[in-house]
Amino acid sequence: AIIVYRLPWTWKCSKLLMKFIHAGLNTIAMILAIVSMVAVFEFHNASNIPNMYSLHSWIGLTAVIFYSLQLFLGFAVFLLPFAPVPLREALMPIHVYSGLTIFATVIATALMGITEKLIFSLKNPAYSTSPPEATFVNCLGLLLVIFGVLILWMASRPHWKRPPEENAKLLRPIGGTPEGTEEESTVTDGSNTDKSDLRINSEAARKNLKLDEAGQRSTM
Amino acid sequence: AIIVYRLPWTWKCSKLLMKFIHAGLNTIAMILAIVSMVAVFEFHNASNIPNMYSLHSWIGLTAVIFYSLQLFLGFAVFLLPFAPVPLREALMPIHVYSGLTIFATVIATALMGITEKLIFSLKNPAYSTSPPEATFVNCLGLLLVIFGVLILWMASRPHWKRPPEENAKLLRPIGGTPEGTEEESTVTDGSNTDKSDLRINSEAARKNLKLDEAGQRSTM
Repeated sequence: AIIVYRLPWTWKCSKLLMKFIHAGLNTIAMILAIVSMVAVFEFHNASNIPNMYSLHSWIGLTAVIFYSLQLFLGFAVFLLPFAPVPLREALMPIHVYSGLTIFATVIATALMGITEKLIFSLKNPAYSTSPPEATFVNCLGLLLVIFGVLILWMASRPHWKRPPEENAKLLRPIGGTPEGTEEESTVTDGSNTDKSDLRINSEAARKNLKLDEAGQRSTM
Repeated sequence: AIIVYRLPWTWKCSKLLMKFIHAGLNTIAMILAIVSMVAVFEFHNASNIPNMYSLHSWIGLTAVIFYSLQLFLGFAVFLLPFAPVPLREALMPIHVYSGLTIFATVIATALMGITEKLIFSLKNPAYSTSPPEATFVNCLGLLLVIFGVLILWMASRPHWKRPPEENAKLLRPIGGTPEGTEEESTVTDGSNTDKSDLRINSEAARKNLKLDEAGQRSTM
């Protein structure tokens, strides 16, 4: 869900469609998270294991609470058409940062969960004797870290950022609909590519060019 | 060490001084990491506990290896005066991203270590009965996550980024020393502040202004 805006072949799709996909994937993930939390509590109750004692559970529950807040606020501000553009612009960096942070926190929670599970489940032979099972699950944990590093790299590269809808901006007078005019401000770096792009954009705007090459991008 | 460039009261200090502080703090951290790893191995050997069996140890060792690589490459490329500017520009986003990733990975490793330690050490009363000790250490773990979130927030905000040394760029002809001309490209967002700053900069460069307000910044 984090990287749907980062796939270049989706840049010709409409912004609204991409928002629906982003929100839909996150809603599915939220439902799965709730189902699995209910399963954990029922398993704990059935096996007489106390709930919410571990650091894993504390940080995991915090992440799920922030995730539901993120989903609700994202829906209310960015998907519903009522929020004014300045509010969207102000909240977008926070939305992006908290999304990436929740993602990283969930990975950390998973790593703690894996650690707990290996210690509790591997008794004979013990985890500390490195049975094949332990090595295998450790590898899965490492893969999880690599997955997180790659996703966050993709999400933070400026040249994988969905380009702003230039023709929509140039052709539409002040006071257009909030869709499309909203800045997709996200974690990027101030590289030269960005700056030269920007200079071209502002020069084009000054000369009121129509930017033919932007014509392939949707205005919505 | 990550946020030394993000403290506005240091922006009047020279870039080279700040680089020395950044490198020095990271070197101290590296020495402490090595000392503590030696302590862990010696404790394990003295207590007949196997080494390197847990996911905590795998991910922790990976992080330390990448950290030493990061320190070595950072020293060779950004501190020594031999690397050409294009190489510095190409490596800076990678340096920044891997630094932030190593930081986040180290926090995840610490959380796994805390989880392990609580499970192994709290036997009577057990961790699962939530003794005050467990609650206290869980709170420390949560604080560690909050610390990580705040540091990464500070490191990724564009308006806390050390401003580029404009007068150095304007006054020095092509072929100046690599120090100072190097872009401090780092994780930022493409907000409006950035863009208007940039437009002012490029306009000033075009008119060949001396930018009096930049005079307070050091050229080195």
